[in-house]
This record gives sequence, structure tokens and C-alpha cells, in this order.
Amino acid sequence: MMAPTLGGSDDVLLPDFPRGPLQAYRVRASFSWKELLLFLEGEDVLRFKKAVFTALENDPLFARSHGADLSMEKYRELNFLRCKRIFEYDFLTAEEMLKSPLKVSVLIDCLGMYDWSLAAKYFLHMLTFGSAIYSSGSERHFKYIQKIFNMEIFGCFALTEVSHGSNAKAIRTTAHYDPTTEEFIIHSPDFEAAKFWVGNMGKTATHAVVFAQLHTPGGQRHGLHSFVVQIRDPKTLLAMPGVMVGDIGKKLGQNGLDNGFAMFHKVRIPRQNLLNRTGDVTPEGTYVTPFKDARQRFGASLSSLSIGRVSIIGMSIVNLKLAVSIALRFSATRRQFGPTDKEEIPVLEYQMQWRLLPYLAAAYALDHFSKTLFLDLVELQQGLLGGGHGARQAELGREIHALASAGKPLASWTAQQGIQECREACGGHGYLAMNRLGDLRNDNDPNCTYEGDNNVLLQQTSNYLLGLLARRVQDGARFESPLKTVDFLEAYPDILGQRFVGSSVADCLDSAVPLAAYRWLVCYLLRESYQKLTQEKRSGSNDFQARNDCQVYHCRSLALVFIELTAVQRFHQHVHHPSVPPSLRAVLGRLSALYALWSLSRHAAVLYRGGYFSGEQAGKLLESAILALCSQLKDDAVALVDVIAPPDFFLDSPIGRADGELYKNLWTTVLQGSNVLARPSWWPEFSANKPAVGRLRSKL
Amino acid sequence: MMAPTLGGSDDVLLPDFPRGPLQAYRVRASFSWKELLLFLEGEDVLRFKKAVFTALENDPLFARSHGADLSMEKYRELNFLRCKRIFEYDFLTAEEMLKSPLKVSVLIDCLGMYDWSLAAKYFLHMLTFGSAIYSSGSERHFKYIQKIFNMEIFGCFALTEVSHGSNAKAIRTTAHYDPTTEEFIIHSPDFEAAKFWVGNMGKTATHAVVFAQLHTPGGQRHGLHSFVVQIRDPKTLLAMPGVMVGDIGKKLGQNGLDNGFAMFHKVRIPRQNLLNRTGDVTPEGTYVTPFKDARQRFGASLSSLSIGRVSIIGMSIVNLKLAVSIALRFSATRRQFGPTDKEEIPVLEYQMQWRLLPYLAAAYALDHFSKTLFLDLVELQQGLLGGGHGARQAELGREIHALASAGKPLASWTAQQGIQECREACGGHGYLAMNRLGDLRNDNDPNCTYEGDNNVLLQQTSNYLLGLLARRVQDGARFESPLKTVDFLEAYPDILGQRFVGSSVADCLDSAVPLAAYRWLVCYLLRESYQKLTQEKRSGSNDFQARNDCQVYHCRSLALVFIELTAVQRFHQHVHHPSVPPSLRAVLGRLSALYALWSLSRHAAVLYRGGYFSGEQAGKLLESAILALCSQLKDDAVALVDVIAPPDFFLDSPIGRADGELYKNLWTTVLQGSNVLARPSWWPEFSANKPAVGRLRSKL
Repeated sequence: MMAPTLGGSDDVLLPDFPRGPLQAYRVRASFSWKELLLFLEGEDVLRFKKAVFTALENDPLFARSHGADLSMEKYRELNFLRCKRIFEYDFLTAEEMLKSPLKVSVLIDCLGMYDWSLAAKYFLHMLTFGSAIYSSGSERHFKYIQKIFNMEIFGCFALTEVSHGSNAKAIRTTAHYDPTTEEFIIHSPDFEAAKFWVGNMGKTATHAVVFAQLHTPGGQRHGLHSFVVQIRDPKTLLAMPGVMVGDIGKKLGQNGLDNGFAMFHKVRIPRQNLLNRTGDVTPEGTYVTPFKDARQRFGASLSSLSIGRVSIIGMSIVNLKLAVSIALRFSATRRQFGPTDKEEIPVLEYQMQWRLLPYLAAAYALDHFSKTLFLDLVELQQGLLGGGHGARQAELGREIHALASAGKPLASWTAQQGIQECREACGGHGYLAMNRLGDLRNDNDPNCTYEGDNNVLLQQTSNYLLGLLARRVQDGARFESPLKTVDFLEAYPDILGQRFVGSSVADCLDSAVPLAAYRWLVCYLLRESYQKLTQEKRSGSNDFQARNDCQVYHCRSLALVFIELTAVQRFHQHVHHPSVPPSLRAVLGRLSALYALWSLSRHAAVLYRGGYFSGEQAGKLLESAILALCSQLKDDAVALVDVIAPPDFFLDSPIGRADGELYKNLWTTVLQGSNVLARPSWWPEFSANKPAVGRLRSKL
Repeated sequence: MMAPTLGGSDDVLLPDFPRGPLQAYRVRASFSWKELLLFLEGEDVLRFKKAVFTALENDPLFARSHGADLSMEKYRELNFLRCKRIFEYDFLTAEEMLKSPLKVSVLIDCLGMYDWSLAAKYFLHMLTFGSAIYSSGSERHFKYIQKIFNMEIFGCFALTEVSHGSNAKAIRTTAHYDPTTEEFIIHSPDFEAAKFWVGNMGKTATHAVVFAQLHTPGGQRHGLHSFVVQIRDPKTLLAMPGVMVGDIGKKLGQNGLDNGFAMFHKVRIPRQNLLNRTGDVTPEGTYVTPFKDARQRFGASLSSLSIGRVSIIGMSIVNLKLAVSIALRFSATRRQFGPTDKEEIPVLEYQMQWRLLPYLAAAYALDHFSKTLFLDLVELQQGLLGGGHGARQAELGREIHALASAGKPLASWTAQQGIQECREACGGHGYLAMNRLGDLRNDNDPNCTYEGDNNVLLQQTSNYLLGLLARRVQDGARFESPLKTVDFLEAYPDILGQRFVGSSVADCLDSAVPLAAYRWLVCYLLRESYQKLTQEKRSGSNDFQARNDCQVYHCRSLALVFIELTAVQRFHQHVHHPSVPPSLRAVLGRLSALYALWSLSRHAAVLYRGGYFSGEQAGKLLESAILALCSQLKDDAVALVDVIAPPDFFLDSPIGRADGELYKNLWTTVLQGSNVLARPSWWPEFSANKPAVGRLRSKL
């Protein structure tokens, strides 16, 4: 079944796993993990991944130091050196990136599996800083691109300030144009307007794309624009005159990355440093723009916002995959209790592994969503670069904006909750730093916040849906969108009349059942939200207040069920496609059904309330189907992990290694720690300096 | 209203807060925070807390180092020195502890608010190790007590092993008695039986209470017993012969505490080191015990298990209080967006603060549950020390075991989820280490695991309830318990027939409404679980299998709703008691109702399924009542935080300081970091050693 090169001994793309305690589950799997992996990723991507994996694993600079106690200074040095080494490997040339954009995402994933601090440092410079210049600037800025690619300069993206994040339009840094010297004067009015949280700014960036309110002579304001500002001297890494730049300090995670702040004291930069794609200032100080109004200009930047959010979806799913791989391999090898005192069984055998298996299904379903959304975005970007500004292009931009704005919350929250569940499922051993679940939780956490707070972002999606309904109600417009995610709403009155019809567990074991329920849910919550919004406005609330007062239990839920439906729908179609090899259909179908039913079960109260469910039976069927699927997937769980887990070196968790030698790996790693058996350096503090009990009591 | 000493200038027990941005909310509060604090805690406890707070804040050894990058070695040294200093303060003498046990809990809370590593180091030695010897040993062991109190020795409690935690009965360390030398031989058969995770064992403990399987000559086994084993020389802190003892390495949190492992190679200890309250070995090697069988002996240790779990409930609630204090003060001072571009409003004004306010209510409700359960436990312990072994005493022990076993999951999960929500609600600033939400999350996390995995523990509680029902069904026994938490079940057929009757939001604003729903839920899930269990057994499952297959959606949910009911019930009674000052009734009533309704809302699907709820109205009323209560509590939120937040020095979060000067405090703390503005020590790696792009590409 495999191509010869896949199994050959010289160039083994997918080597067999070492025999060991996981074998018992591997032999019970209903499918070949190699076949599934090839089906999902394709040989080209697998070869590329293998090249990256092999290079880093063989390079001593990337040696792992399991749960070691690195100082921040040392960690950052290592991270910087590793980032530099990535330039030397040059895994993807600029041409290759253009030819195969998916590989950019694969490369980021691989670096992230190694360490998110490394991935972030690299892509904040290359992609975030680089593409901000490329897509917001013009030919006069392309000189920076070469300097970015050879690390002559190092870049960062400076938008957020101490007192403003979500409300980016209220950024307070100013850029006043001075026609006498043809310069902009970049200025921070006070420390609350200091740029803050900027990745790479803390210690290493020499240049920043700085967002500031543009003022031209005569007191004219033109809103937020971006400027290239040199903040450090590349020869010395010392700050430029007028720039106070520093490090914001230790974070909950990603401490290999230097997040920083900067205050600008009347820093002068050449006129040409304005990134002028959406607006420019003439040497004399006249503002010129191809856009008619500021709102339209702001809208034009939507697609660049989507890039960040779609990337975060991918990052979150990588974290979820790593965590479930660790926890399920642990569960398959950890034995505790049993039917008799003599015999203990793997904890994976317990019904309570319902806590983990849905997250495995989520990893598969959301990974597919992440990849397809990335490809949608590539289509959008290529359209834009090709000069596409038509109506379809604009609609596609809005739809992807809506999907990315809710997809990021869905993916980052699912990962965050999943990692926590995995941590707990591994018990005390999950609380040991060397097993990596803590780093995953800490490194994933900001995915819930940056590029838009999750709850704030969800409003973008509900606004999109409510806007479609308003156009429908007011103008009779059709529900349709380029990616067809909203087209089903055309039937919304019919859908609202539908009811759950399952009568046995067997009826519910396909994702078609939850899909129908999800379509009803979106229609129901869309109607509820629209009515609530209308009612709030009628009772005298202004638009701002009315929208705020419709979030909880209405718009927020609407955005979530819509994005869950979209993810479920895409994975359902994928696993039911004729191209799926017959041997893989059963297991993929179960994953799709489990993710869909489990997600749906959190909305059971709404299904009942709105009448889609009625009677005791419906809710019980849902629960029984979830448990039945968990039970069916239990014996496939280890093989499903084998498909999504990276090599041991990248998974980097003694309790999650592919050989399943849980305790040997754990014990050995403990003993490899530094000074494990040594007494503490301060031992005389115990032995000699005994406390005088109560000596200080009189002082109380 | 206040006693003069409370407001006097020399000895101010409750000083006013500094004026500042939080003032706007403080003046809007419906009650006096000082009055509420005095009502909840009483002057005696407040004076004691103040003494502890003042002592530590004025002692340079306890100086805070906000989010600093301490090495583990340095952190542990500091933590040890601070622990020693606590002995010198001697805040509570042994007599005071016996006289006022609640103050022991208050002291632990205060130390925990400072740093859980310190609290854990202190109480693992003094209380866990100390009380293991005191309550499991006999007079021959009391010599250790004085050595514990003056730190001549340092102790740890060694139960769990590399391969056994939850299933403690399967512990594999052995203790063979050798009558020729009158010694026990403590032995670890292999590294999987190494003691592991033991707090204080990593670097500092000189003595351990070691649990091992007792064997006497002739091959007789007597199950798990505990022994005092010296593991290090107090003069040198070097390991004793035959003991391999070391540190398990970095953890996700609590890294000031040294968790360790130990393997014993035929280590001989005197016969007297057996802690012999439940069983002893004569010099000749005969086993003698006052208990008839091993099960009964195991049962006798239940109350000591409850001590740990009840303590963890308290620890979790401290963490929840700290986190909501930080997040709500941040929300009251952070402004973002507004009705116009000119004016921004505090994020606390948004409906979305529904994400935080229920956790504030939970902190109040569960704090009361925690305190009352602690006092119940004190009653149990005092009864045991008084020689009480009657039926009521045994029943009380079982009831408290059931409450503690589900109370720990409820409290630790609520805290863990609440801290995560608080982290996200503080956005990027919540992700800065200095603001402490990361440490709170990391330090709280093990509360979900140690002293029993949460999901495993919940089975203890459902088993208790199912046992009562079985006795009722089989023997007609009454539902009654010493603390009366199960007495309402006597009416369970009636309760199952009840239905939700509210018809307006106003009807639902008292916790009596969710209380009635909770009673129905417990009855419903008890019946469902019992039927499911019976059915599993009937279809041929053995007891072990049947119980496992009833956990998800049945027994697990049953245990959770039972403990939520108990917590809601206790707080409801407390806030409706005639002793509540009239000026506090409204706000306390709202807290009680909000916690109850919000907790209940997670079970709405079951309420519908079982027919307690029907129609769209019921679910909507529940949601509307939650939002109405959030809205009513918004203006009281800052004052409610003032009641539960410790002094700034203990809260230790720039964004959560009592003066509300969010940005000033944040900015100043950033600038106080080390080397904030300095270039990295490795700057030439950027400036001089440029990467040769693609140099290593050929190696791929």
C-alpha cells in the first residue's frame, strides 16, 4: 500500500515506532496510522517536515533541556542564536514561500512544536514586520525587505500601548509632519501612550513599524497610520536618541521572546518612512489617499488582521495536538486500580477518559478547519496582490474576517481547556515541568488575548451575521457568501421549524445529526439576538449600549455556534468525501461525530429551550452517543496520536514518548537534572543557624 | 457604628483606602465594606491577621520581587529562610492552636496569600508531618513533636510513589520485621516504587513518615502502615546510608517548595519507629491491632484524609479571592471603547463582566462553605481526641468525608477556572508575571490533583449518596446525617414531582429558587445513577466495572450537584439569618442568589431533560436573573473586593492595588525590573556575528 520510499530502510519517511508498552493498543487499531498521515498531509509536506525535524534534532544548538531552570537572559540568548540558525538553514526561500504558502504555516508549526518563543521571534520579524512593510508600504520601502531577510536589521510591530489594546483606533502616539525638514515627529504624549507588549522590542529589534495618529500642518488629523522607526543602532543595540526602549519583564510564558515598550520623545524620521499604501503626505504636507473616507481605509486593513488570527488558530491546534498526545500516551501506559487487587488496568480503559477523547477529536476537526481557512486566506491574499478589489473580493474579505474572528476564540479556548484537562489527566506527573504541559498551557494562553481579546473578537462575527439578517429584512438580500458558510440561512424559517428526530444511539453516530442541530441553533440564536437588539434599541438605547447589552447569552453564543457549525461542517464534508480511502472512513467518521456531538452537548439547554429537543430521550441519546463514540475510539486513540504527534524530540515529554516506557523515561529524566542528589548550597542554614522560636513574637 | 479602636488613628484595624480612581465605585457602594468585613470575620480574627500582615510586610526578608527571575536554588533558599523566620515569629503557640483552631487556618491563608511555597513548606512540616506522628503514633513518638516545633528535625509525608498515587493501597514499598535485631527493613523493590512528589523531601527533610506494606516473620502481610524514617543527617543534610533521596525538579508552580523522591535500599529502623495507633508489632514479631479487619483500620484513617482536603478547599478559595480582587480592580479602572470616540468607559460597565462577577459571588459563598466545613471537621477531631467512637461520630466522619471529597473538586476547579477567566479579563497585562495571575494559576493547579484527583474523589461522594439510597431501598433506613446535608432526601419522591414555578425575573432573585431546583437535581441524578448502576450490574458487569461505567453524566454529576447544593444551602442560611445587620442583607442576598443561579445554569439541560424546566420562559428567566444580579452588583463590586482583598503587599499585583492607579503602578514596577533598559549581554551576537543565510541549507 505504501510507496517503496516510505518503508525503505535508507530513507524512511515514516519509520515504525519502537516496540514497548504502547504496542498493546497499536495492534488493536482499526487502521494504519501511516496511511492516515499520508492521506491528511501528503508526501510533499511530510518530507518537508522531516527535513526540518531532522536538521534541528541533529543540531546541538537545539539540544533539549527538559524543564531546566534557565535564566531569562540565557533563554533569550539561546532563542536568539536559534533564530539566527533558522536563517542559516533557510528552510524556505522567498520563492518557495510564494509557491507553497502552506509550507510557511508548516514551518511555523514545526518551530512552535520545538518552542513557541523561537517561532514567535522568527515570524514576528520575518512575517509580521516584513509583511507590514510589504503590504502597507510601497516600492520606496522594499529596501527593508532584503535587510530583513539577511538580518541586517531586526523588526517588530508596534501597535498596542499601555492603555490601549482592543480599542486600537484610540492609540495616542502622534506623528506630526514638519514640512520644513520633510520629517515626521513621532511622539508619546505620556507613559500611558508608551508602546507596550511589542514582541522583539524588549532587547533585539532595531526597527519598528509604529502606529501613530497622523497630523498634517494646519491641525488636520488623518487617523492611524504606520511608520518605520529606527529604535536601536544595529552596531551596538543601544537605543536611538529620543527613544526610551526596554523590556516589559517576565511573562507567564514565551519568555524566550523579548516583549518590550517604547516611549518616543519627539523622534524625527524622514517623510519616506510613512508606510503609504493607504495614504501619503506630500513634501509640502498635503495628505493624499486613494480611499474616500477613514472607515473605508480601516476596512482595507481587515485582511491583514485576518492573517494574525488565522495563524493563531494554527498555533492553538498545534498546542492541543501536543497536549493530547502526551496525555493519551500516558493514559495508555499508566495503570491504576483494577477489578481485583492484583491487576491494574490502564486509565485509558476507564469511562472517565471521556475527559480526553473529545479533545483528540477536536484536534483533528479543528486542524482541518485551520488548514482550509488558511487556504481561503491565501486565495484572498493572492486576489488582493493580483489587484482584485471587486465585490466578491470584498465579500470574501468580510467572510474570512468573520471566520477568523470567531475561529481564533474557538481554537484558543479549546486548546487552553484541553491542555488543562490533559494536565489534570496526567495527575502529579502532569505537574512536572519536564513533561511540558505547563509550558503548553502558558505558551498557549496569550492566543486568547493577542490579535484581539476572544470575547471582543466574537462581536465581529455576530455583527457580520446580524448585518446579513438586517440586509435580508430590510432589502430582501439573499444569504450568500463566497465560501458559502452562510448560504444555509436562506432556509432559516424552515430550519427553525425542524425538530430532533433521532430515536436510537445508532441514529446519532454520524455528524449529520449534530450538523442539523447546529444549523437550527444558529438560526435560533440569530433570531433571538436580532430580536433582543431591536428591543434594546426600541427601548431607547443607543447603538453602542444596545450591542453591549446583547452579548451575553445572545450575540456571543451566536458567534460560537456559527463557528462550531462551520468547523463541524468542513470536517464532516472532508471525512465523507469519496477520496477518503475506505479503510479510513470508519475512524474519521467517528472523530467527526464525536467532536460534533460533544461540542453540541454544551448547547443542550438551548436546544431544549427552543424546542428542538423535547423529552428525556433526546438529551440522553446525545450523551449515550458521545460515550459510545469514546468507547469505539478508545482502541484507536494511540494510533490516532501516532498520526498527530511529532517525533519525541519535538514532543519533548518523558511521559509522552513513542516507546511508551513511561516510568523509565520519567525516572531517567529526573536523574538527568542538575544537582538532583546534591544538598542545597545553603545547607548550614538548616544545620547550624537554628531558629530561636518565638524570638520575634514580642514584636507583634 | 464601629468600635473606637477600629477607626482610631494610633491603632487602626481597618484604615480607609487611599483616594484614587477606584473612589468613583467606592462611593456608589450600597454598604460599608468595614461593616461587612467585621461581620464576616470578627474583630479577633482581623486583629490576628493584621499582626501577621504587619510583621511580614515590615520584615526585609519578605520583600517582594515582582515577577523576578529567581533561580530555583535562590528561591528555595529564600523560602527556607522565611519558613525559619515564621518559627521565630511563633504567631500561634501550640496552646493557641488548640484553643482557636480556626486561627491555624487563618495563618495558613495569610502565608499562602504571601506565597504558597512558604505556606506549604511550613504546614507540611508542622501539620502534615506533625499530625501524622501525633495522630498515628503513640507516646513513644511524642519526642519528635518538640523537635518539630524547634526545627531540630525537618519532616515530610511520604505516601505516593512513581507508579502509584490514587490507588494508595497498592503502594509497593515494604517494611519487613526482623525480630533478631528488633528492626524494620524499609525497602523499595524498584524505581517505580520510589517515593515521589513528597513535599520537603527534595532538599530539606531529615525525617519522613513513610508508608509501606508491613510484613512480619512467616510471610504475614498486614497492609499499609506508616514509619518514621530518618533520611538525612540533620548536621550535614546529606543522605543516610541506604537512602537515595533527591529532588524531582521544576514544577509548574510552587517552586519554592522542594518536592522529592526517595528509594530505600534495605534501610533498617528501630521497631519503635512504627506509628502504632492502628497496629503494632511485638518485639517477637507478632502483629497486634485494636481493629478487627483491615477495612475497618483503613476507615479509621478517613478523618485524617479529610484534613488535607478541607485545607485545600480553603487554599483554593484564597486563590480565587486574590484573582477576582485583581481582575475587578483592573476592570473598574481600565477604560476601553465608549459610546463616543471621545469618551471611554471602565470595562466593568460592560455586560460581559458577567465573566467575572459570578466568581466574586463564588468567592463569598465558597469561603463560607470552607469555614463551616473546617469547623465541622474540628468538631469531628475533638470528638475523636475525646475518645468518641460512637455511631454518631462514625456517621459524622463519613458525612464530612463525603463533603470534603466533593468540596475539594468544587473549590479547586472553581478557583482554577476563575483565575483563568481573571487572567483573560485583564488582557495582556494579565499575562505579565508581575501581576500574579500566572502564579495564582500555577500554584492553584495542584489543588486539583493532590490529596486525590478531583474526578476520583467525586466517586467517594456519589458512593456515599448511593449507599444511603441502597440502605433506604433495602432496609427502609431514614435519610439522615449529623450535619443534616442529606435529610431533605427523605422527601425525594415529592421533590421529584416538583416543577419550576417562577414567572418573572423578580421571582428568581433570591437563592431560595435555585435551592429548590438543586434539591430536585440531586434527587433526579441520584435516581438516574442508582438505576444506571442497577442496570449495569444486572447486565452482568462486576461491581468495579459497573461503577466505572456509571461515572460520566451520572455519578460524577450527582456528586457535583450535591456539593453545590450544600454550599448554596449554607450560604443561603447564613445570609438570611436574623443576625445579619439590615444594611448588609441586600448585598449578601444578591451574592447568594448570583452564585446559586450561575452554578445552577450549568445544569439547565438536565433541568429541562427531567422536566423540572419546561418551555422557553424558564431558561430565559434563569439567564435574565443572572444578568440582573450582575448589574445590581456592579456598583458594589469594588467594595466587595475591598472586603476580601488582603493589603497591597500581600495581593502583590500592580494592576490590583487598592489606590486604583493602574498604569502608574504598572509602569513603575516595569521600570523597577533589572536591566530593563540595558542591551542584552550577548549583543555582539546580533551586531557582529551575522548569519550566513542558507549556509546550512545544503545539509537538509
